[in-house]
Amino acid sequence: MSVAPSARFCDRLADAIDRVGAPVCVGLDPVADRLPMQFRARPGSDDEAVGLFRFCVGVIEAVRGHAAAVKPQSACFERHGASGLLVLRNVIGAARAAGLIVVLDAKRGDIGTTAEHYAAAATGVGADAVTVNGYLGPETIEPFLDAGLGVFVLVRTSNPGGDAVQSARLADGRTVAEMMADHVAALGESRRGSRGLSDVGAVVGATKAADAAALRARMADAPILVPGYGAQGGTADDVRALVRGGSRTPGERGVLVNASRSVIYAAPREAEAWDEAVRRATREMGEDLRRAVG
Amino acid sequence: MSVAPSARFCDRLADAIDRVGAPVCVGLDPVADRLPMQFRARPGSDDEAVGLFRFCVGVIEAVRGHAAAVKPQSACFERHGASGLLVLRNVIGAARAAGLIVVLDAKRGDIGTTAEHYAAAATGVGADAVTVNGYLGPETIEPFLDAGLGVFVLVRTSNPGGDAVQSARLADGRTVAEMMADHVAALGESRRGSRGLSDVGAVVGATKAADAAALRARMADAPILVPGYGAQGGTADDVRALVRGGSRTPGERGVLVNASRSVIYAAPREAEAWDEAVRRATREMGEDLRRAVG
Repeated sequence: MSVAPSARFCDRLADAIDRVGAPVCVGLDPVADRLPMQFRARPGSDDEAVGLFRFCVGVIEAVRGHAAAVKPQSACFERHGASGLLVLRNVIGAARAAGLIVVLDAKRGDIGTTAEHYAAAATGVGADAVTVNGYLGPETIEPFLDAGLGVFVLVRTSNPGGDAVQSARLADGRTVAEMMADHVAALGESRRGSRGLSDVGAVVGATKAADAAALRARMADAPILVPGYGAQGGTADDVRALVRGGSRTPGERGVLVNASRSVIYAAPREAEAWDEAVRRATREMGEDLRRAVG
Repeated sequence: MSVAPSARFCDRLADAIDRVGAPVCVGLDPVADRLPMQFRARPGSDDEAVGLFRFCVGVIEAVRGHAAAVKPQSACFERHGASGLLVLRNVIGAARAAGLIVVLDAKRGDIGTTAEHYAAAATGVGADAVTVNGYLGPETIEPFLDAGLGVFVLVRTSNPGGDAVQSARLADGRTVAEMMADHVAALGESRRGSRGLSDVGAVVGATKAADAAALRARMADAPILVPGYGAQGGTADDVRALVRGGSRTPGERGVLVNASRSVIYAAPREAEAWDEAVRRATREMGEDLRRAVG
């Protein structure tokens, strides 16, 4: 469990996956009116943010030892304003104290100094890594890396509508997503850790299995964050094409699979507390992934 | 000055531009160590956020009557955490009270319900419109519109590195930026106001003048937010190709030109207070734009 804080993100991620034996990431997408009853409050009141905090801390306690990482969805906290941002910082603190890697799902992207401000905001709340949008060009991703963060660049997102941009075919034969994957690979070249991975990861949805192998081939060293497992319909089989070949440890296989709603809202089940349901869903996800991606 | 709050964003924007006679937008990009001395505080202290607030309110007072809109850069506030977010909300409140349109420069973009949370965050701080990133597909932009916000979709950004994605040529002959412009036009079709504009705008940098005419031709009704004027080297001449043809009022010409650093950090000049320098820079920008874009 002793990891030098100066270690590269990609190495810390691989270590965390190895510790639990499966590339499980649990998405923290707390929505006030979906929380277990004991965490609900009058809509619009400050107590709503308190409920979010208590729920997220409960999820963190339930998944520790079974998940390698959590992925707080920034929007769910931002919609509660300044209180939400305080909760986000405290939730991230609790997650890191529990030994979890924290991927802040913020999908940020902006030019030059503005990207530096976003990177400072992400390190300020304690994130290990952040999801970023590369539409403004690969140079706009570098400030996050320079701040010591890992990044997961949006390449092929899990929603159906993403096709309208990401599947567009370029004159040189690549899709837009493949072009973005090539940018990921180029950025990662000088940012490799000791486990064969780089600090420049990618997002490839589990629901886009048909594109997965071609995308992995273009960015062999990228850790790939795979949303869409669970509630969005992606399965462990869909993840297989993203796993890096060769005999490696689970952490070196280069995928981190995320489930949000199917885990954190797993309750109610009969005769089971909500947090037991969360723990069970996380454990089952780990077993499912171990079977499929080894 | 009496505008029904229920009026479409595009109509309110056109009215605001008509009132000042020029499409001037001032970017609120407050950075602690660039502020006039009286607003600086010990780095990392809570007073830093207070300084940001007082500076932005001073800018708002200086530009009222000369600018149609302000564009707070979300990252500059977010890097100050929860305090920064409180400041952002109060700055936006002050801007709206001064009759300014508020375009929150947040470059958000996410799928489905997450986009709804981002839209709620933007309306929660009081924004009239928000910049959005369409890499995840046009469907991900709709929740912002459904929340009553105007949007400016990133089409062709002002930074040099944007070319690596936005200038890529598709098999059908369009660039990626032109494809995004077509999405803007399609989304705008059902969202037109009474002045010939739609609520679905675009971002096209003043530094990308060579691409401007072709992009405008693809999205005739889009209000176009033009960053890059001033400190980034764009000029009023560069904006001409984005102006909609025909005899219309300034507001109906469909451009909103932004300057940030060259205006808000215009001081020091001899024998002039910092806010006088800001006012003068804003007024000069208006005169420059009136000459060039009529």
